[in-house]
Amino acid sequence: MKQPIIGILGGLGPAAGADLFQKIIENTIATCDQDHLSVALLSYADIIPDRSTYINDATQADPVVQMYAIMELLQRCGATVAAVPCVTAHAYPVIGRLAAQMQAANFDTKLLLMPQETASFIKKTAPHIQKVGALGTIATRKHRLFYDALIAEGITPVYQSDEIQDLVQAAIFNPEYGIKAVSYPVHPQARLHLETAIAYLKAEGAEAVILGCTELPLAITEPWLMDVMMIDPTLALAKALIQAVAPHKLKA
Amino acid sequence: MKQPIIGILGGLGPAAGADLFQKIIENTIATCDQDHLSVALLSYADIIPDRSTYINDATQADPVVQMYAIMELLQRCGATVAAVPCVTAHAYPVIGRLAAQMQAANFDTKLLLMPQETASFIKKTAPHIQKVGALGTIATRKHRLFYDALIAEGITPVYQSDEIQDLVQAAIFNPEYGIKAVSYPVHPQARLHLETAIAYLKAEGAEAVILGCTELPLAITEPWLMDVMMIDPTLALAKALIQAVAPHKLKA
Repeated sequence: MKQPIIGILGGLGPAAGADLFQKIIENTIATCDQDHLSVALLSYADIIPDRSTYINDATQADPVVQMYAIMELLQRCGATVAAVPCVTAHAYPVIGRLAAQMQAANFDTKLLLMPQETASFIKKTAPHIQKVGALGTIATRKHRLFYDALIAEGITPVYQSDEIQDLVQAAIFNPEYGIKAVSYPVHPQARLHLETAIAYLKAEGAEAVILGCTELPLAITEPWLMDVMMIDPTLALAKALIQAVAPHKLKA
Repeated sequence: MKQPIIGILGGLGPAAGADLFQKIIENTIATCDQDHLSVALLSYADIIPDRSTYINDATQADPVVQMYAIMELLQRCGATVAAVPCVTAHAYPVIGRLAAQMQAANFDTKLLLMPQETASFIKKTAPHIQKVGALGTIATRKHRLFYDALIAEGITPVYQSDEIQDLVQAAIFNPEYGIKAVSYPVHPQARLHLETAIAYLKAEGAEAVILGCTELPLAITEPWLMDVMMIDPTLALAKALIQAVAPHKLKA
């Protein structure tokens, strides 16, 4: 199996991996099965210790041990490029260390990073945009995953208040209405919290808002909301992965 | 990695693999990522020669060579149970031979078969049903994949005419409006052809109709249509796979 293969380290959570895979299919130019790209998706949700717990407290179980083992499996499956469809995991204690370990071991598999691919996607597709907000988990905000990636592309981040951050956190994690608990379809309460957060960022001057947790695009599927451009990091990642293995097959 | 893992040999086509994975997620009892099951999905669409072409003409490229290699990879990924989300491929020249080769090599991975799991699903969930139709490709019809599986469960198959079969084939394969070419969303013409076929089977006495090609449930998402029960083999397979690795996590 010598052709390029896209690897997905999924399971964080499973729905985000399914969403990335579907977006790869949807954005590939193809009229028959054989036109589609090879994808290996390992969604070992039940063996990877919770990354948010570990990022908050490094004495807890380290997810990188299992994630590295899964990356080795993806390499064995022939993955030439790979990604982890979970923004939070990109904080240094998890994907930062994973990437360093892969580099030290001379992996054949090139790892693409969601925050960087998202900022680069905005720069490429909407170069006029100057101010961008980013919704995501507490860890994503604290570790400045999108903010630093945006600044690196010359874009000014727009920040939310702690109160707004609490609403976003609840929209993702609330055990009764959070997107992680209720995904198909998303609960209206989760959607409402996110609309409040987007209105806040718009008032602060954001021209675009990154739906910066892989669960959020399941709740906000519109490309524009309140005249603000919605940016789906999973879509940006899907396009970057196709670009990496077969640029001529990437839909415009 | 010693816990049970579900293997999916995808890519025939890619959307069917994504659909099976999503149905496994949706039918698993879970309130957090770690409650979900481990799934390995290898969707190597571009390296597997077309199975329909081979079933029609055994002098063409044999897909079983690559499918066996992928099954070996799934076994290495720890898959304890596996399935191929493509009904047509279950004809003897493809999955019949694949299963025989796996058995001869003493695979650790148990292969579940879609037609058998579908018939068993009908028997379990709607034991009163006596007459069932099955829509699918020409090969699925010719090789009696569902008909023989239904008979084995004591259910009487309802057959369609050649004219109706032509409509179903076009709904799947037409390069302009077929589901393989246009999946998200499905083209209305494909849907219309399938409605005509379901009405025909109902008139012939069918109480349920198997949407017996993995692309068809993308077009017919209703559980009942024209008072006929719609049976989704991908859903039946998803439930059988969960049942095989973690019966206590299977949603009712």
